[in-house]
Amino acid sequence: MTDGVFTQAVSQVRPVDEVAAEAARLRHAQLTKPLGSLGRLEDLGIQLSAIARVSPPPVPAPVTIGVFAGDHGVVASGVTPWPSEVTAQMVANFCSGGAAINVISRQVGAEVRIVDVGVAIPIPGDLSTLYQRNVAKGTANLAVQPAMTREQVLAALNVGAEIANGALAEGARMLVTGDMGIGNTTPSSALIAAFTGTSPSLVTGRGTGIDDATLLLKTSVIDAAIARLDPDAGPLDIVAELGGLEIAAIAGFIVAGAAAGVPVVIDGVISVAGALIASALAPDVKGYLVGGHRSSEPGASIGMAHLELVPLLDLELRLGEGTGAALAIPLVQAAARVLAEMATFDSAGVTERTGDTE
Amino acid sequence: MTDGVFTQAVSQVRPVDEVAAEAARLRHAQLTKPLGSLGRLEDLGIQLSAIARVSPPPVPAPVTIGVFAGDHGVVASGVTPWPSEVTAQMVANFCSGGAAINVISRQVGAEVRIVDVGVAIPIPGDLSTLYQRNVAKGTANLAVQPAMTREQVLAALNVGAEIANGALAEGARMLVTGDMGIGNTTPSSALIAAFTGTSPSLVTGRGTGIDDATLLLKTSVIDAAIARLDPDAGPLDIVAELGGLEIAAIAGFIVAGAAAGVPVVIDGVISVAGALIASALAPDVKGYLVGGHRSSEPGASIGMAHLELVPLLDLELRLGEGTGAALAIPLVQAAARVLAEMATFDSAGVTERTGDTE
Repeated sequence: MTDGVFTQAVSQVRPVDEVAAEAARLRHAQLTKPLGSLGRLEDLGIQLSAIARVSPPPVPAPVTIGVFAGDHGVVASGVTPWPSEVTAQMVANFCSGGAAINVISRQVGAEVRIVDVGVAIPIPGDLSTLYQRNVAKGTANLAVQPAMTREQVLAALNVGAEIANGALAEGARMLVTGDMGIGNTTPSSALIAAFTGTSPSLVTGRGTGIDDATLLLKTSVIDAAIARLDPDAGPLDIVAELGGLEIAAIAGFIVAGAAAGVPVVIDGVISVAGALIASALAPDVKGYLVGGHRSSEPGASIGMAHLELVPLLDLELRLGEGTGAALAIPLVQAAARVLAEMATFDSAGVTERTGDTE
Repeated sequence: MTDGVFTQAVSQVRPVDEVAAEAARLRHAQLTKPLGSLGRLEDLGIQLSAIARVSPPPVPAPVTIGVFAGDHGVVASGVTPWPSEVTAQMVANFCSGGAAINVISRQVGAEVRIVDVGVAIPIPGDLSTLYQRNVAKGTANLAVQPAMTREQVLAALNVGAEIANGALAEGARMLVTGDMGIGNTTPSSALIAAFTGTSPSLVTGRGTGIDDATLLLKTSVIDAAIARLDPDAGPLDIVAELGGLEIAAIAGFIVAGAAAGVPVVIDGVISVAGALIASALAPDVKGYLVGGHRSSEPGASIGMAHLELVPLLDLELRLGEGTGAALAIPLVQAAARVLAEMATFDSAGVTERTGDTE
């Protein structure tokens, strides 16, 4: 791997701190509630302590949502009913604040950074808020050839890491992943199949809504691309073969967040593919990941399980953009606040339970 | 039923507005996302339109969380390892801001109103923020006699409605239910069994953590109390027989929220019992209810299903206080914002999908 911000980030990822985790576990037993009664919020608080290396952990704010956009040559093979031009149109919509991720980020008090990593056509409208980091005008068609060169993969990883580093330098203390790219459930499913060793027929789903014939086509496209992989292919070779530019950028974004010691909340199937790339290149990132939302894409569940993540939300979202992960932000912040701000049995003068202990 | 704010509220509950719901449904199809891709957030936005009688609906804010506290004579029968004095101690903890509900409400920007409806012993500390509406010093022991008189039931219903009306008059546009009462999963389970016609052995759970022997005892206590009910008992008779003061107050709070046309987010098993009382007395309240969190108590799931509610969150919380419902507040607000603030395909210049439609 050549030098660059991504390589540097990989070298800086440390395992999370189990000593701080244990301190948080002990603190939970002293707070004015039956032990375990805050369920997954307690586990999450312990993880946030491990990430921040201190108990109680700081409330992870402010938050930056990175939305990485790219196009996919595989759209020419008919894997989606949406035309590629929608990627550029939606990026314009993000920039003017009218998309779902903009609305949800305003609700949860997070900043959105829109990044063009691989949009194929010119983006219309006012681009003053766009991070223009275009590596290529879309990927090649993975149905018939490698989606990217190794150089493009490295450039996209660097874009993601650079965007994360910029947000972190401006104060971000939590990152959230998002995506936009017509056709990108196809490379994402292929990456999940490759990195988890699962059959394409099990990981491939209907994306934003395709019929049975298109689903069969999509699965056969992924089968063919995976069949081209050398048995000894490394992570970068796999990403080059299968794509895509915004997915590699998400991987870079995740690694840089973990390197800086902040939690990274991941969204649906595209972000899961990015997280699998990230953890293949820097295994310790796993401790920094929080699963935001259970995607209805089968590959997302398989990838989440591989990463040992149980998503916080299950609201049947299948949009991408980071929407599912963004909705989980207040839950993550609440988990940190509980550890930091709740009274203890001693300080509040509350009697502990009698009889058996848990 | 005697006159009072509760009776007045019952008479003011209207069915939600299906015309506004249909307008919201149509609007969802025009927003820049594949139809249905925001999953349950779309359904929730449609419900909020029906409640507010307009599409798009206003963002439901500010929010008041009503936490109603009461004690239970049934604790003398050994149904919980926690001593009754903890109710008063936790109310003091709420008043000084150190409990889980205080912390979570700060995270989500909601106000908490702590209400003493039936605490048995003097509450220690500074009570300047407490709503002192004590109807009785706890209920009688439902294991051996009716928990309350009919007059106490009506007084508690009025307390809940009055607290809601006060918050609404000060601007609240969404209400959230919460509770505190050592032993209150016992009357709640009994109420759920009675109002849904389910066997006590199916609805009764382990509350904040009891062993097998205590679970058997708890179930037999509920069996005995339900066996005393007259087959022709009306809702008020059932509540008087089974309790409890804070549960009846929650029912009054819910009805007054529905009467004012605002959404009411309900928490776990105690709030579900309150919602069943509310819907027995004013069936149209059902349209105003939002299920906040899936309680691990079996009775909560049975009661939610009876009310046709699917909770938004499933984080394995079993604390009460309103914590699960409070965590759902940003999701409800996001659902309204999506309808109000997202761009349409036309306004954003985004191409709609080709081929089959959903």
